[in-house]
Amino acid sequence: MKSIKVGLLGLGTVGSGVVRIVEKHQNDLQQQVGSPIIIEKVLVQDRLKSRDVNVDILKLTEDPSDIINNPEIDVVVEVMGGIQPAKSYILEALANGKHIVTANKDLMALHGAEIMEKAAEMGCDVFYEASVAGGIPIIRTLIEGFSSDRLTKIMGIVNGTTNYILTKMSQEGVAYADVLKEAQELGYAEADPTSDVEGLDAARKMTILSTLGFHAHVSLNDVSVKGISQITKEDILYGKKLGYEIKLLGIAEQQDDSISITVEPTMVKTTHPLASVNGVFNAVYVHGEAVGETMFYGPGAGAMPTATSIVADLVAVVKNLKLGVNGLKSFAPTQVKKIKRDEEISYKNFILLHVEDKAGVLAQITQVFGQYEVSLESVLQHPNRSNPKAEIIIITHDANRADMKKVLEHFETMDVISTIKSVYRVEG
Amino acid sequence: MKSIKVGLLGLGTVGSGVVRIVEKHQNDLQQQVGSPIIIEKVLVQDRLKSRDVNVDILKLTEDPSDIINNPEIDVVVEVMGGIQPAKSYILEALANGKHIVTANKDLMALHGAEIMEKAAEMGCDVFYEASVAGGIPIIRTLIEGFSSDRLTKIMGIVNGTTNYILTKMSQEGVAYADVLKEAQELGYAEADPTSDVEGLDAARKMTILSTLGFHAHVSLNDVSVKGISQITKEDILYGKKLGYEIKLLGIAEQQDDSISITVEPTMVKTTHPLASVNGVFNAVYVHGEAVGETMFYGPGAGAMPTATSIVADLVAVVKNLKLGVNGLKSFAPTQVKKIKRDEEISYKNFILLHVEDKAGVLAQITQVFGQYEVSLESVLQHPNRSNPKAEIIIITHDANRADMKKVLEHFETMDVISTIKSVYRVEG
Repeated sequence: MKSIKVGLLGLGTVGSGVVRIVEKHQNDLQQQVGSPIIIEKVLVQDRLKSRDVNVDILKLTEDPSDIINNPEIDVVVEVMGGIQPAKSYILEALANGKHIVTANKDLMALHGAEIMEKAAEMGCDVFYEASVAGGIPIIRTLIEGFSSDRLTKIMGIVNGTTNYILTKMSQEGVAYADVLKEAQELGYAEADPTSDVEGLDAARKMTILSTLGFHAHVSLNDVSVKGISQITKEDILYGKKLGYEIKLLGIAEQQDDSISITVEPTMVKTTHPLASVNGVFNAVYVHGEAVGETMFYGPGAGAMPTATSIVADLVAVVKNLKLGVNGLKSFAPTQVKKIKRDEEISYKNFILLHVEDKAGVLAQITQVFGQYEVSLESVLQHPNRSNPKAEIIIITHDANRADMKKVLEHFETMDVISTIKSVYRVEG
Repeated sequence: MKSIKVGLLGLGTVGSGVVRIVEKHQNDLQQQVGSPIIIEKVLVQDRLKSRDVNVDILKLTEDPSDIINNPEIDVVVEVMGGIQPAKSYILEALANGKHIVTANKDLMALHGAEIMEKAAEMGCDVFYEASVAGGIPIIRTLIEGFSSDRLTKIMGIVNGTTNYILTKMSQEGVAYADVLKEAQELGYAEADPTSDVEGLDAARKMTILSTLGFHAHVSLNDVSVKGISQITKEDILYGKKLGYEIKLLGIAEQQDDSISITVEPTMVKTTHPLASVNGVFNAVYVHGEAVGETMFYGPGAGAMPTATSIVADLVAVVKNLKLGVNGLKSFAPTQVKKIKRDEEISYKNFILLHVEDKAGVLAQITQVFGQYEVSLESVLQHPNRSNPKAEIIIITHDANRADMKKVLEHFETMDVISTIKSVYRVEG
């Protein structure tokens, strides 16, 4: 019985998790695929560094060529992260006929098309379940579970750091800056949190999910992105009062063969299943024409959940290898991408204004909405006794983004409005 | 390009949904599998009956042999339901080398082992995603997504009728009998609701899920079952007061290579993701050693969600067919089943007692718990001014089921306890 040989690029917490699972579940895995699975070589930066996972030092190498050009190795598992040199290693490994399992969302979001093309040319598998929502098998579900349905909407809480911060702000009434600091101390946020809090990480994941869900090559530039750093305690409080939780949602929609993808803080109705996804958990909500509403919930990151997804992908690759069918089920976009213009994208809006507290102001404001044909669901006026400003909270009916921009531009010119405090998309 | 020919057993709402999806998405499907998929023959009881789906009358047949013995047909989709004649048809179709897609939970729960054995012998695929939680791809997830993990717990809200009833009781304070009647009028509950409300339907689904999740042939007899018909408004009210929602949960657990499976009304902590699964929706919560907590949420039934799952299975079968690998990935249990005894199953309990309202009663009761080594998390005494009885609500710490039985038997003998009103398992 020929064993399957795996080369591992990287031995951080995720790589170590993969080693542990393959070791601990060797018997189970062998029963599933019919061959032993052997971690043959592991690329590290320093062979002599002490580690908390037990790997034979003879298997460690500092030379990537020992893996990507090693004729013994069948499958390369990439857990280094970052664009380069991971991209070059993967493309070279594919050129050598090796199958790839990767957890690299940045790489798949930015260069997925190029990698999948090379894989198809070489008849190789590239699996990347762990790149989005580590512990949730959402990529497999999009490719296989909904293969006969037409998806209309994918909404995801796909960044654990920002969801942790927003959950804390909501549950404990703490300010953004304070929670961020705490999250950094706990290791839930990076020292430079920009990629998380400004929505870029979520945008990359939405790029991957919408490419799969809508069968079109979506690129990162197609995603309009806004982060969470401007959210105030006041926004969260007023949201709650009206029955909403603020979540950083990635929203990908498809109608009439054209799509829109955004990542932005969104007021989610508390009765919607996404509203109760708290802490570092991730969830992906999928709406299909036939299936209706579904949601997949689980850990978004963490060494063991991510490693579990990687090993599940490894099992799938090895099964294909034994069956001689690698590269045959790989994803190829069948739709030509058409991105919606602002005029074609409609949703409800939550708007918080600070205005002069005098008669007739509300009428002036509602008139502006009417002028641009934005109709209103509710208006809440809230006099603030400590100063001469009043607060007005407006929920619109579905309004297209172009009209809403005009309304907000008009507001900027009005003396009675002192500040457009917040504007949020509303869902659920 | 040879087309793939499908025989459909049954043309009710689900069967009609399959016909509609295959028709509407013919181009998509063809792109995915590389061949046209043709519904060749449909078994019906009456060819001449008028229908709201458009099927050529020449394709309709009243003779099952036109499908199961038809050499033209590659895949048989069974959506008749019930044990017989579905079982005989499927076994005969398998004997003729046809692949099977079925939505039949009763058949798979009771005779799954026999059917899978025949399929393995013939090198045929049997896919049955739609048999559990129609719109949720949970079976694929258990087989593939968690293939390298060791699952410790599967908890499911897998019966939409009972979840609808309990949601109504909880949200509107309506009594069981009244909601059941309304559910029957709305078509959410059968005229004879026994199989749903007594937990049997859920037990069948848990049999299927635990067989897959624990890699062992679980049979329906291994499941201990209790239904929802005894739940009172009072139980729901006190549950809420203590932070719980009552749900009919299927709970399958695995520890130290032995398993336990129950279906019973359970007090679920409101912070647990299962607590907010409402109405006819289903959800399956899975805990794995490596992945941690995940949950899959979606419609449990309905013609289109179920038909979507069936067509996704059909796509998988056809892909395998084109690759020549049918029957190779089929599930075979690798574990010997060991069912836990009552002494080995521990959980928290919620107990509601009606007692004499006099001094010393509480001490007598807590003493009984101590005698059988059941420790308590909280005790709430609630005098009822309108009569001489008091109510006591007790939440235990984890206690094994054998000890709890002894406590309850002892309670039966005590004069100060007038009624053991309710006993529920507690989770979350």
